[in-house]
Amino acid sequence: MEMINLEQFELVSNAFSFAIAVMGAATVFLFLGRSQVAPKYKTAVTISGIVTLIAFYHYWRIFDSWQAAYTVTSTGVTATVTKFNDAYRYVDWLLTVPLLLLELILVMGLSREETVSKGKALATAAVAMVLLGYPGEISNITGERWKWWFLAMIPFVYIVIKLFSGLTKAINSQPESVRQMVSDARTLTVLSWCFYPVVFILPMLGVGGPESTTYVQVGYTIADIVAKALFGVFIFAVAVRKSESNA
Amino acid sequence: MEMINLEQFELVSNAFSFAIAVMGAATVFLFLGRSQVAPKYKTAVTISGIVTLIAFYHYWRIFDSWQAAYTVTSTGVTATVTKFNDAYRYVDWLLTVPLLLLELILVMGLSREETVSKGKALATAAVAMVLLGYPGEISNITGERWKWWFLAMIPFVYIVIKLFSGLTKAINSQPESVRQMVSDARTLTVLSWCFYPVVFILPMLGVGGPESTTYVQVGYTIADIVAKALFGVFIFAVAVRKSESNA
Repeated sequence: MEMINLEQFELVSNAFSFAIAVMGAATVFLFLGRSQVAPKYKTAVTISGIVTLIAFYHYWRIFDSWQAAYTVTSTGVTATVTKFNDAYRYVDWLLTVPLLLLELILVMGLSREETVSKGKALATAAVAMVLLGYPGEISNITGERWKWWFLAMIPFVYIVIKLFSGLTKAINSQPESVRQMVSDARTLTVLSWCFYPVVFILPMLGVGGPESTTYVQVGYTIADIVAKALFGVFIFAVAVRKSESNA
Repeated sequence: MEMINLEQFELVSNAFSFAIAVMGAATVFLFLGRSQVAPKYKTAVTISGIVTLIAFYHYWRIFDSWQAAYTVTSTGVTATVTKFNDAYRYVDWLLTVPLLLLELILVMGLSREETVSKGKALATAAVAMVLLGYPGEISNITGERWKWWFLAMIPFVYIVIKLFSGLTKAINSQPESVRQMVSDARTLTVLSWCFYPVVFILPMLGVGGPESTTYVQVGYTIADIVAKALFGVFIFAVAVRKSESNA
């Protein structure tokens, strides 16, 4: 089997360490910033910080798992008997993806009934999406990967449709000062989420072996930073602005 | 290859440990001090603490990487197969340098539009500067190092010009009690930042081998302590004084 080279090993290591730093910094920023928003929006900011905290924990595990999976020798990089644990990502997403959708809904400040019904529908679809993606991720058979990719894309498309059709009315009822920002937050969710199915299919498009491993790991890391840390700060900014205008 | 001696190994180790202590202490000071400033300046102090927290994390990694890169034997210091990871510094700067400029702008308490436009311009230039410096840092070829040094100096000079021309009006509109301090904070930024390009060119000036490694590591560490911890405490002092005068 072809092995990753030293540059690839180090690039992935540095990307994971970068993610640890970003997720940790975002968590502290959001937990401290929580005191700066109106009571109505505190839960949205709390959950944003919890999402980055969960990701901080998992990137620490992922970093350690990556170090344990390879040994650097004087002649290059060799694999150890310990396999790199891909499951950490899926365990992370199982928790964080439903929570990310809740952040978005909570910061809108809808009625309790609407929050609960939209939250339940989106969170359930998010859990289904992650669970359906995992059997494909751990498979080396291209046909299997495609099958689970298609199955996971059903809840994915459902979520995107829900975000665009179901939330348009809610967004139009937002105070004018934040309407554009809330709409941008929705767009950021959808755009950052599009990374994942694309990264997933890279190995199926003939980008094989060590390059594929490197692209997949760096790609997911960038997607996670955008979808969790950047998105969280964005939700915080919306909450601050709504708090100022007493909306 | 000439190897660093025991004194050099220990000096660098102790400098890194010193940085861990300073960055950790500054983080706690700034996070606790956050409650003492007016709401308007809380984000500036939060970000100051996040910068030192990110640096604290990276100095921990740098310290561990330094220990893993060398073995102390009865006859001296020998290198292990694990290379010292220089990338931690650049990953750190990629995050902290834009944030440092944001601190300075946020503590000025400008209008939202001015804060956003000045923040975006300076942060983008800061990211470009760090990204352009890295290929030079990891190169052993003097010509390559000079090339990337010159390229990184373009955004560097842009930032310095922006700080002096673009912020002079903003500084003159500060309340009199803090005008000098804000101006000093700007000067401190520029002066502490001048360390970096100088440290970068040490290996190109014939200060070679183990001396160069030692000077570069100790030099960057001192620069980081001034530019992050000392600067952060300075920003806090400005925020306290502005809060007292209700400015």
